[in-house]
Amino acid sequence: MPSISHKGRIMPSSPIRKLVPFAEAAKKRGIEVLHLNIGQPDIHSPEVALEAIHRLDMPVLEYSHSAGFESYRTGLAEYYAKHDIAVTKDQIIVTTGGSEALLFAMMSCFDPGDELIIPEPFYANYNAFAISAGVTVVPLRSSIENGFELPEEGAFEAHITPRTKGILICNPGNPTGRVYTANELERLRKVVLKHDLFLFADEVYREFCYDGTKHISAMNLEGISENVVLIDSVSKRYSMCGARVGAFVTRNAELYDTAMKFAQARLSPPTLGQVASEAALSTPKHYFEEVNREYRGRRNILVEGLNTIPEVVCPMPSGAFYCVADLPVDDADVFCQWLLEEFEHEGHTLMMAPASGFYAEPELGKRQVRLAYVLEKEKLQLAVECLRAALEAYPRTISMKERQRAARG
Amino acid sequence: MPSISHKGRIMPSSPIRKLVPFAEAAKKRGIEVLHLNIGQPDIHSPEVALEAIHRLDMPVLEYSHSAGFESYRTGLAEYYAKHDIAVTKDQIIVTTGGSEALLFAMMSCFDPGDELIIPEPFYANYNAFAISAGVTVVPLRSSIENGFELPEEGAFEAHITPRTKGILICNPGNPTGRVYTANELERLRKVVLKHDLFLFADEVYREFCYDGTKHISAMNLEGISENVVLIDSVSKRYSMCGARVGAFVTRNAELYDTAMKFAQARLSPPTLGQVASEAALSTPKHYFEEVNREYRGRRNILVEGLNTIPEVVCPMPSGAFYCVADLPVDDADVFCQWLLEEFEHEGHTLMMAPASGFYAEPELGKRQVRLAYVLEKEKLQLAVECLRAALEAYPRTISMKERQRAARG
Repeated sequence: MPSISHKGRIMPSSPIRKLVPFAEAAKKRGIEVLHLNIGQPDIHSPEVALEAIHRLDMPVLEYSHSAGFESYRTGLAEYYAKHDIAVTKDQIIVTTGGSEALLFAMMSCFDPGDELIIPEPFYANYNAFAISAGVTVVPLRSSIENGFELPEEGAFEAHITPRTKGILICNPGNPTGRVYTANELERLRKVVLKHDLFLFADEVYREFCYDGTKHISAMNLEGISENVVLIDSVSKRYSMCGARVGAFVTRNAELYDTAMKFAQARLSPPTLGQVASEAALSTPKHYFEEVNREYRGRRNILVEGLNTIPEVVCPMPSGAFYCVADLPVDDADVFCQWLLEEFEHEGHTLMMAPASGFYAEPELGKRQVRLAYVLEKEKLQLAVECLRAALEAYPRTISMKERQRAARG
Repeated sequence: MPSISHKGRIMPSSPIRKLVPFAEAAKKRGIEVLHLNIGQPDIHSPEVALEAIHRLDMPVLEYSHSAGFESYRTGLAEYYAKHDIAVTKDQIIVTTGGSEALLFAMMSCFDPGDELIIPEPFYANYNAFAISAGVTVVPLRSSIENGFELPEEGAFEAHITPRTKGILICNPGNPTGRVYTANELERLRKVVLKHDLFLFADEVYREFCYDGTKHISAMNLEGISENVVLIDSVSKRYSMCGARVGAFVTRNAELYDTAMKFAQARLSPPTLGQVASEAALSTPKHYFEEVNREYRGRRNILVEGLNTIPEVVCPMPSGAFYCVADLPVDDADVFCQWLLEEFEHEGHTLMMAPASGFYAEPELGKRQVRLAYVLEKEKLQLAVECLRAALEAYPRTISMKERQRAARG
């Protein structure tokens, strides 16, 4: 049997999926598992989008243009204009989710061995796309102590080498929920400008900002217009993760043409997902207001609740629908597995994403977990109580090392 | 502005898209362009698939499992069983089109610089995926004179080096329409076994075999069960190119697990496309019989017609819906552009795909074009007459070199 590739060997497994068999076993034992581990919202997709699918009048389910339907791109440009992002339909490539947009960006901009700076903790799959494209990820540590503020200019400078070719940010942040301020983005702008780097800005959580926090797009940073690629997706905006529709947006014509060659090779983004996404552009404003109010309420219950648990620290995020919490445990991977394998509180337990998967150096996130508030408020309340009881019950004094060994087997 | 990547620079543009502006200009002049250039069938998608979309009952358009819906994979395994291919649902990863299946295969099996032998002419986008994965394509010439028969064992052996790690075939073939015989596949089997290579078998045209030709899957070749990856797609089978649903199928557990890591990184294949594809599994037999009869009739009109034109040679293909024809012209790229720019026959002209894009060495396909018979019979008849008139009118005696220079700008 021929051997598999080096890329294939170093490709990380999903940090969450490792826990899935334990969650399934818990459910078989009759325990209700509260899923705070995933980014799949429970919010309904907009009616207009679902109706467009129900009314589909397309006898041949054809390819679209490789850049996506022109009508959809036109509508998207109008959507961006409403968010003060000035782009034309010809600066947009509709992609198969934000994932593909990021892959096109990395493939188009980076040669193997080129370095990409990413503030960590960061979305685990960034590693996977970097490995696919042969890109070297250079993590730049941000800290839970100051709510995962973007590191200072000097910290960026300290990580820049002759191979540095870009920076990737997620704003609002997954897993941190951080929304970068004008000051933080100004730091970033200076570094990008000074070193003439690409800036990939994953802004898929744009709509999810709370307490009057204003989202500032990287597309609006002065003097680096040709350096920026906006990575976008309808997955979270309209709770349509399954549509697999995203966007690669850039004002850099050469980069656009390059990415289009990758887009042509895979022929077209999904037609049905585009039909739903185009219709979703007409989603009424009150949908977003309601969704926002709901998430804000959930965030408050979860984060305020977490901070009432002894020794748990969780900065209040102002965006997305995640938070990162520091727990009084030696190893959050072991703890998360223990929750599923050995614990229950009044018939419940909870599943969280160990934060180790969001750090390039897993040790840094060893005490941390990511929680997604994609459950209704009552369940979140239950989750907080479950975690409180679990941390009381967790046998922290017995040999953690043995547990770790067993868990990692 | 930072520079784009080497990959991005060498990535080929679509050979067909270059002609698109000329086709659009022709249409603006009131000329009807007969599109024989694309693989987008005009055949209706199955009613059962469209109905499943119309009846969609899914308030949240969620991600599916990264390997695809379990119910769909179960159904797919039954579909394969009916085609005498024995696989389980756990040997299938549902992908975003055949394109993604091929990308996963290359990423999982090949390190940069590893060599992949592909009989040429071959589907142009194979080059694009190879560039994305850093794979070196080693073309192995097949010839129009013997209907693009798979080269002899000795020809494969002559191309094998210490870096050779796999062979990619397309069977039935795009662009050739060739369906490999048992003898041809036995040659291939021996080479794969002897050198322990991966064999990627793109069998997306499985259903399109004519005149009683029996398709033999690479999955059924003895002794190389763990070497084979089946690349599949619903695009052509059900005329659902826009669904973007394909499959990566292998009995090699290690390879499956590796490809799953790439699949997890992109989260999930399109949910709506999977709904349509799962429903399409119940497409009644008479749909395929009618489609097959239709294509067979079209093929006869086109290929028999082409062979009545002086100096045109077109082997009769036994599968897919393409044929490759050798034309009495110096440069098919120039001729195809001329057809759109300067020619018309009773208000019509035709658009074909120059075959240069299907060869690693474009010179080899310089006199050849690929024609897709995805138009109704009357239009195909018209296309033949159009081509006959065009070849009579084509100013072959005037300076071709000048035209080539102009066209290549």
